[in-house]
Amino acid sequence: MSAARERLYLFDTTLRDGAQTNGVDFSLEDKRVIAGMLDRLGVDYVEGGYPGANPTDTEFFAEKPPFRNATFTAFGMTKRAGRSASNDPGLAALFEAKADAVCLVAKAWDYHVDVALGITNEENIDCIADSVKAIADRGLEPMIDCEHFFDGYKANPDYALQCARAALESGARWVVLCDTNGGTLPDEIFEIVTEVCKHIPGEHLGIHAHNDTENAVANSLAAVRAGVRQIQGTLNGIGERCGNANLVSLIPTLLLKSAFADRFETGVGEAGLLSLTHVSRSFDELLNRAPNRQAPYVGESAFATKAGIHASAIVKEPETYEHVTPECVGNQRRLLVSDQAGKSNLMAELSRIGIDVEKSDTRLNALLREVKEREAEGYSYEGADVSFEMLARRILGSVPDYFKVESFRVLVERRYNALGNLITVSEATVKVEVDGESMTSVGEGNGPVNALDTALRKDIGKYQPFINDLRLVDYKVRILNGGTGATTRVLIESADGQGNRWFTVGVSPNIVDASFQALIDSVRYKLLRDGAPAE
Amino acid sequence: MSAARERLYLFDTTLRDGAQTNGVDFSLEDKRVIAGMLDRLGVDYVEGGYPGANPTDTEFFAEKPPFRNATFTAFGMTKRAGRSASNDPGLAALFEAKADAVCLVAKAWDYHVDVALGITNEENIDCIADSVKAIADRGLEPMIDCEHFFDGYKANPDYALQCARAALESGARWVVLCDTNGGTLPDEIFEIVTEVCKHIPGEHLGIHAHNDTENAVANSLAAVRAGVRQIQGTLNGIGERCGNANLVSLIPTLLLKSAFADRFETGVGEAGLLSLTHVSRSFDELLNRAPNRQAPYVGESAFATKAGIHASAIVKEPETYEHVTPECVGNQRRLLVSDQAGKSNLMAELSRIGIDVEKSDTRLNALLREVKEREAEGYSYEGADVSFEMLARRILGSVPDYFKVESFRVLVERRYNALGNLITVSEATVKVEVDGESMTSVGEGNGPVNALDTALRKDIGKYQPFINDLRLVDYKVRILNGGTGATTRVLIESADGQGNRWFTVGVSPNIVDASFQALIDSVRYKLLRDGAPAE
Repeated sequence: MSAARERLYLFDTTLRDGAQTNGVDFSLEDKRVIAGMLDRLGVDYVEGGYPGANPTDTEFFAEKPPFRNATFTAFGMTKRAGRSASNDPGLAALFEAKADAVCLVAKAWDYHVDVALGITNEENIDCIADSVKAIADRGLEPMIDCEHFFDGYKANPDYALQCARAALESGARWVVLCDTNGGTLPDEIFEIVTEVCKHIPGEHLGIHAHNDTENAVANSLAAVRAGVRQIQGTLNGIGERCGNANLVSLIPTLLLKSAFADRFETGVGEAGLLSLTHVSRSFDELLNRAPNRQAPYVGESAFATKAGIHASAIVKEPETYEHVTPECVGNQRRLLVSDQAGKSNLMAELSRIGIDVEKSDTRLNALLREVKEREAEGYSYEGADVSFEMLARRILGSVPDYFKVESFRVLVERRYNALGNLITVSEATVKVEVDGESMTSVGEGNGPVNALDTALRKDIGKYQPFINDLRLVDYKVRILNGGTGATTRVLIESADGQGNRWFTVGVSPNIVDASFQALIDSVRYKLLRDGAPAE
Repeated sequence: MSAARERLYLFDTTLRDGAQTNGVDFSLEDKRVIAGMLDRLGVDYVEGGYPGANPTDTEFFAEKPPFRNATFTAFGMTKRAGRSASNDPGLAALFEAKADAVCLVAKAWDYHVDVALGITNEENIDCIADSVKAIADRGLEPMIDCEHFFDGYKANPDYALQCARAALESGARWVVLCDTNGGTLPDEIFEIVTEVCKHIPGEHLGIHAHNDTENAVANSLAAVRAGVRQIQGTLNGIGERCGNANLVSLIPTLLLKSAFADRFETGVGEAGLLSLTHVSRSFDELLNRAPNRQAPYVGESAFATKAGIHASAIVKEPETYEHVTPECVGNQRRLLVSDQAGKSNLMAELSRIGIDVEKSDTRLNALLREVKEREAEGYSYEGADVSFEMLARRILGSVPDYFKVESFRVLVERRYNALGNLITVSEATVKVEVDGESMTSVGEGNGPVNALDTALRKDIGKYQPFINDLRLVDYKVRILNGGTGATTRVLIESADGQGNRWFTVGVSPNIVDASFQALIDSVRYKLLRDGAPAE
């Protein structure tokens, strides 16, 4: 909290450069939600898109989001050569946008000025200077992204610097050095930025790094060490090709590692840092993709330990085994229940899921024995917390069965239909008993497990209302020992209408059997979670 | 190719530290396949596991894999204090292993020596020295992983250095500096390694980095710049918590970026580099997980461009928009507007499997179209060469069908048997036609696919002798789009009595159907390979 710390600015381009990610396509509503998340997190600039380039972005800039802190920034290009800035249609669209700041991309590599733009070096300098002035004249904060800056600098350092200086001298608040191809390594970044800082004060310089050599985070840090005071990046590192610098990894390093935390302060405070795991995972939810378990700081496995020898030491002295505490980024420690697990792993895991039990309780030994036996059979609870929870509750306490499955039958048939085409049909029959009453349901599906799931969930009597919003969202199968005597492990991911997601596991030589176990565990968990009455 | 370049050694720990990854569980067969991949790639050391710690690792070290280049390395711990090395059960298990080298983990942080081991600093030094000597005495190459080296160095540099020196002076070929917690940043690594190099020659030092701040690759590169000459890492960066340094990202940087390529050479040559994309994706297939599209160098999107403005320029001048060429790492450019790139790629793949075809052959277009359509449906030929070969032969040349399957039916039933126990039975009926004659076979199995396989292979008439030695050795299932409307991809690995192994793929919404396609492809390939007569 020392007043001597310098201010470091965070510029988020998730909604602009991040939108270049293969497979990512933000709706207007997505953009609004994400912009709000970023503002609450505490980033300084939210680059919302490229107004004028597509209808979504134009509409997004039709009104200013209700930001508390962030500067709402529009992206665009410098004016075309031969026009005046006041007469350029691209700039005109930017001036109509309700932005506080405008970031313009400009060429800084003489080769591209010649080949891609087909104009002279002087004309390009004029485009930069004139466009920056026009933005400043409208009372907006101007900044310039110097495209291919590092390649340009290596090819012609004088010209690359001229472009940067022209921007600064015309009033740009920030001159951002972009490693557009993503191929520059950390020490090259450090050396070049150090040189640039001799000509342009670091408090006007930014870094925009891409991850093509897996160094985007390191490159951003190297640039800060060399003098830049603005970092551009995206949530979870999304972006074109291999992605942009990952702000979710950078923020904790800047706030928690003394090499940076002692020298700098950012707009992200303690509360923002605490929300980081949630922000990262919510963003993945919004993209409809599974969060990266191994993500630095925020991943589900980021503070997970499997090794038995380490596990008991971690319980005693976590700070000597963890580089930061999981809690300060809103994450949590996980001691994996694996075949190397000891009692301390098990107790820690139980307390995490809200089951308190005395260390002396003999049922704990029974549970440990059962877990070890099941893991020897092929169960893996590492990825299936809920199956572990259901097993623990069955052995330690009392979780009702709710219903009993008396039998099932699945038929898959491939044959010619009346039109002479080969078709495959799957059909399942399930007989369940609820409150002493037997019910038989039939279901069809596009495969045996889908047919079984359909039949099972068609009628479980009084419990039916509890599972109406239950969905299977993913299904994974792993064959454990190979060959015909193999054991099959099935992992099912379920979700409900309240936004909950959970994993269950089943193991059997028979894939249908294994799937059925995981299905049943999932259904019973849903009943437990929502407080369904026991028989 | 200059003789002046220094040798840099690559040490792969996928099978040891990588096995700590949450959710990863290698079988013996997995270990064999991965070790072979690593040897062919050209890494110098393959750390296969921890013999004595679990039955799989002990069995894996019961015989030496047929490596061409790599040094087969066992992992273990230094002897317990108070024992002689010749009397230590942990070391004894290592000496029974058929390894060429042994890497022992040792404490280098005085705090952990005290708290975790409960021994004196001197006793720990003795454990290191005595264990290293015992390994060298057996004619094995000794090396030491200095656990928590960087935290230890910060706390007590003299003691951390003493541990490292004791290892070196006792005969360790390598002293590996481990950032066990993964929290050290690149310039701290650079500074500390620079200091260490004043005491221990860099040609005896290694770096072992973890990705907890997303800097494992940068940390490894910083350590090399500061003097170390061995890098430890894993395929695709798997490993405990956030993973280890990613060799798949490091290798191209070391071989292609002049800051490293001009100074160093590695055991990975041009051919290894060309195979890198294939190695990375095959490894993910083996782990049964979707490859990371955004992976540096090898990801499907690593050379993909969505930006309209860039796309046409890239076609004209790719080298100014790409930091390296996609081809040199076996990857390909993807312009989301054109599929022009496909044909030369396809030709290369065909020539690789021994099918020669003229570029002007119109059947090539038909094959390209079919491959693209199938890939859109979910087929992936990366991990299933034989299914690709069978498809290509069907479209380009003439591969006979040999037999026709008219229909099949699979029944899975769970019910109580006469003793009142719940049992699950699987039964399949398959009707095949060979030489115009129909045959119906019935098979039972421990699951639907096994029953189907049994029935199919019970009787295919005159072809029966050709498939008697055919075995299914592995079976993997991946659900592609999640949820109930999902597509299922099945990958089957087959083997025969002559030591051949091959992979086939099937795709369908129905898992039984998908499995059946892959089975049929495998059986037909076996008939083709062994020269069975056509109908």
